[in-house]
Amino acid sequence: MTQHKRTRPVQKKDEIKKDENAVRFIPLGGLEEVGRNCSLLEYKDEIIVIDVGIQFPEEETPGIDYIIPNITYLEPRKQNIRGIIFTHGHYDHIHALPYLLEKLGNPVIYTAPFTKALIEKRLVEFPNLPKAKFIIIKNGDRFKISENFEAEFFDISHTIYDAMGMIIHSPAGKLVHFGDFRLDIDRNGKPVNLETFERLGKMGDIHTIFLDSTNATKLGHAISEELITENLEELLKKAKGRLIIATFASLLTRLKAMVAIAERIGRKVALNGRSMKDNFAIAQSLGYIKPNQGTIITVEEVNKYPDEKIMILTTGGQGEPNAGLMRMVNGEHRHVSLKTKDTVVFSSSVVPGNERSVQALQDNISRKVDELYNYSFLDIHAGGHCHSEDLKLVMKLVKPKYIIPIHGYYFMRKSVMKLAEEIGLKREQVVVMDNGEVAQITKDNFTITSETVPASYVMVDGLGVGDVEEVVLRDRRMLSAEGMIVIIMTLERKTGRIVKNPDIISRGFILIKDNKHLLDEIRKRLRNLVERIPRQEAEPDYVKSLIRDQIGQFVYSKTKRRPMILPVLIEI
Amino acid sequence: MTQHKRTRPVQKKDEIKKDENAVRFIPLGGLEEVGRNCSLLEYKDEIIVIDVGIQFPEEETPGIDYIIPNITYLEPRKQNIRGIIFTHGHYDHIHALPYLLEKLGNPVIYTAPFTKALIEKRLVEFPNLPKAKFIIIKNGDRFKISENFEAEFFDISHTIYDAMGMIIHSPAGKLVHFGDFRLDIDRNGKPVNLETFERLGKMGDIHTIFLDSTNATKLGHAISEELITENLEELLKKAKGRLIIATFASLLTRLKAMVAIAERIGRKVALNGRSMKDNFAIAQSLGYIKPNQGTIITVEEVNKYPDEKIMILTTGGQGEPNAGLMRMVNGEHRHVSLKTKDTVVFSSSVVPGNERSVQALQDNISRKVDELYNYSFLDIHAGGHCHSEDLKLVMKLVKPKYIIPIHGYYFMRKSVMKLAEEIGLKREQVVVMDNGEVAQITKDNFTITSETVPASYVMVDGLGVGDVEEVVLRDRRMLSAEGMIVIIMTLERKTGRIVKNPDIISRGFILIKDNKHLLDEIRKRLRNLVERIPRQEAEPDYVKSLIRDQIGQFVYSKTKRRPMILPVLIEI
Repeated sequence: MTQHKRTRPVQKKDEIKKDENAVRFIPLGGLEEVGRNCSLLEYKDEIIVIDVGIQFPEEETPGIDYIIPNITYLEPRKQNIRGIIFTHGHYDHIHALPYLLEKLGNPVIYTAPFTKALIEKRLVEFPNLPKAKFIIIKNGDRFKISENFEAEFFDISHTIYDAMGMIIHSPAGKLVHFGDFRLDIDRNGKPVNLETFERLGKMGDIHTIFLDSTNATKLGHAISEELITENLEELLKKAKGRLIIATFASLLTRLKAMVAIAERIGRKVALNGRSMKDNFAIAQSLGYIKPNQGTIITVEEVNKYPDEKIMILTTGGQGEPNAGLMRMVNGEHRHVSLKTKDTVVFSSSVVPGNERSVQALQDNISRKVDELYNYSFLDIHAGGHCHSEDLKLVMKLVKPKYIIPIHGYYFMRKSVMKLAEEIGLKREQVVVMDNGEVAQITKDNFTITSETVPASYVMVDGLGVGDVEEVVLRDRRMLSAEGMIVIIMTLERKTGRIVKNPDIISRGFILIKDNKHLLDEIRKRLRNLVERIPRQEAEPDYVKSLIRDQIGQFVYSKTKRRPMILPVLIEI
Repeated sequence: MTQHKRTRPVQKKDEIKKDENAVRFIPLGGLEEVGRNCSLLEYKDEIIVIDVGIQFPEEETPGIDYIIPNITYLEPRKQNIRGIIFTHGHYDHIHALPYLLEKLGNPVIYTAPFTKALIEKRLVEFPNLPKAKFIIIKNGDRFKISENFEAEFFDISHTIYDAMGMIIHSPAGKLVHFGDFRLDIDRNGKPVNLETFERLGKMGDIHTIFLDSTNATKLGHAISEELITENLEELLKKAKGRLIIATFASLLTRLKAMVAIAERIGRKVALNGRSMKDNFAIAQSLGYIKPNQGTIITVEEVNKYPDEKIMILTTGGQGEPNAGLMRMVNGEHRHVSLKTKDTVVFSSSVVPGNERSVQALQDNISRKVDELYNYSFLDIHAGGHCHSEDLKLVMKLVKPKYIIPIHGYYFMRKSVMKLAEEIGLKREQVVVMDNGEVAQITKDNFTITSETVPASYVMVDGLGVGDVEEVVLRDRRMLSAEGMIVIIMTLERKTGRIVKNPDIISRGFILIKDNKHLLDEIRKRLRNLVERIPRQEAEPDYVKSLIRDQIGQFVYSKTKRRPMILPVLIEI
């Protein structure tokens, strides 16, 4: 079993005194692992929170639904929270809000219309929450969030509508947060529309930028969305049967592009999957996507048209068991089942951890259709984050004093140091932080203090928030690797003698019924063991630990496996 | 939980009669999933087995050590097995032998010296096996394996020494098996040394080739090992501190190249990790690697030399918990702990499924050292398998009547059809098979029959081979997702009344001690439930299933989780 234990850096920090006049920046999530984005800026009794997202569970956290930010630091200070700013509407930036809204004191939410709509859709699932209070922001708006913080918002390019960056005007100076972002790249691979970054550079006094480093270790510039669209159109034009395109429901810009292609090549578009339909409906109602009359049809209507007139946009490209695409493959979809002449296109990346599921899905699809494409054949997917050359350009244009890589694993964030050096900045201008570290920002400095605040995982499992602890996960991992054996000893209270043949049940170990000799041997050893314990020592915890050790060792010697041994003593 | 259920292709096969005069080809593993390579050729009462490898466990098979080929078909026919041919010494081709050697009747093994040495090393771990019988093969050898099969062996390029391909001269004609292979690519990306393939082509009568399709969906030609070595040398030359290079112990050609670089740039080489040392020792004893006197030092000696004179080759690049590299990172290695000025290079790909472990490892390394490189920065790793253009070239040169893609997922193997079409062959010349399918080969045909033989997983877990069945794995998956609750009811035999407060233990669910109200509620419901059952209906299985259903539902309503509920009735 893998343990993603974090090693602390070698460098020791000197004790740095708390400066009451400094602005404090504290990332509560979004560093070290991917997702669970949440951070705060604090000055005296004023706090701004930026993003409240989820992190998806991992191999290490079996059975968990989501991991959410740890707000131990914020909860007792909720009266200081002057607002939450949401940069954009992706799950890893907004989805933890319902679990934390009340605990944060239901502060005012600053965000753009599309993000607001997605948050509201999410909040509907939690009917007992207080009504959220929104202030709508748009490009160019400047809001006084509190006495000492003002936020000036600007549009930024990402894969979802209404992604916003911001300049926080603070007592320490101008702090710029870009959220998740990419540069607009033209079809020749050159960045365009750099006005925002040039404008920031012209100000000449940007103190610190918080820089999305998700793709900092990817070489060159990100792939142009324009080129992707051209490649896709080229590919889709040639298809003879239906087109079935798997992509993320959150990749709104791609959805829009696909609808435009469908209209150009004369196909109807059916949306498959709830989140796909919901997001599309929101984008349509806000006017971001404007399909022609009659372009969009329902999945039920697909069979009314000839195959060569159909494009289906579907979720499930990550191999999710119950998603629309999986149902089409298994023949469980009510309206669509795959045909040999269909063309299936995966226009999405593989989320780390899903590699095997995606492979199995694509194998099963290629058993049924002759034309299957994924990004390994052609550039038909681009992510929403700057590559290394993009980041270098941004740093060069904006000329900040300090750069704080955010989002992405440590390795990616640290690699920003190298990128900065390559454009002539000093390594020290890049500060690589960890979740829960506290930075102190003054006019001239950006320093990490020796203080830390709690930033460990808070896990959501079913209705429970934070009630699944490390010990529960450890048990799950152990159970999953070797299973368990429950041993029930019924003893006479007075004498400590066994009054009944020990009951033994096991799960996930081996099939006990096929291993009767092992079972008999365990029973024999249990009897010997209990009978040899002098009455005065027969304290239940002692007996249990003896059973665990000795039966555990015996089972290991016979099977080389270490199931969890759970002894139960019933005294009657 | 993901289910990698296989969907059968749409095409139905017509009933094809068994032809007693045909050669039969049956893949027992190596298709559908990666690894567990094993196949057989059969003609009347003669059988040749090719490779007997393992498959590594997956998310779907928690706690399993290895998956090995299913030899249900071979076991009753073991007297027909005239030999096992091992193409090369990678684990997925040789490592299952000890579990199956006796069951296969200890037949003669044909293989090259390096492979033989690796097999012997593996067999040492199983002292009770009969002595294996080897016949050593080398390039150009031709052996009469049985009355009707002759094998003619040839060298082929792979990442390990002594990889062999073969022409099987059979009653149906010439069948060519390449094993795992790549083309030699020069530093300009052009394939060289194509003589073997040209020679096969000149024969003009190659009936069928079995074609390694592992990288069939990768574009272009494979990356040149020469270029990789140059890139590595360029990178390593610049390093100021120690060099620590993580790679696979089985990547013998890379190990040799690294030693050569070390000698050119004036560094000593220490090998770290048991498999690395073992493989290196075998390669050295057989004369494949010939380091200069004094180049190789022990890890214990590393600290006797200046840092800039040291190169450490280590295992553990996949993030394996107990491997050498992990110990260096955690400070648990006795002789090496990472220093800021070390340069760490990952010269290996990430095995699917290990993405997160490798990321965590690289994060931890980059917390400690300033220079960390992996393949995302530079071409510093190439695999051992042909890319699509390589495969096209091979098909073009060899001109076989039939092509059977082997190794790799269905999607990769099916994509060979497209590659064949691109060079003017017919789609029908490529036959995509599944494990357990039976092909019939006659002079003019290659047909899949409607017969199948067992090819499902056989799992090795500790000392048990094949005793972990699907139900055990299902339990493990379930336990891992939601944990379990054991409910022990002590009842009076005569009356069926509860004589003791129910005992409840749980693991991997929630911490019961923190949820006393839930526990009390469960106990109350248990009492009500049992007391309402009329005595005449109190059959134990019925009571247990009532408890499972009702307590299961109650727990779900309160927690939205479905732990496994295990009721135990103790009657006294």
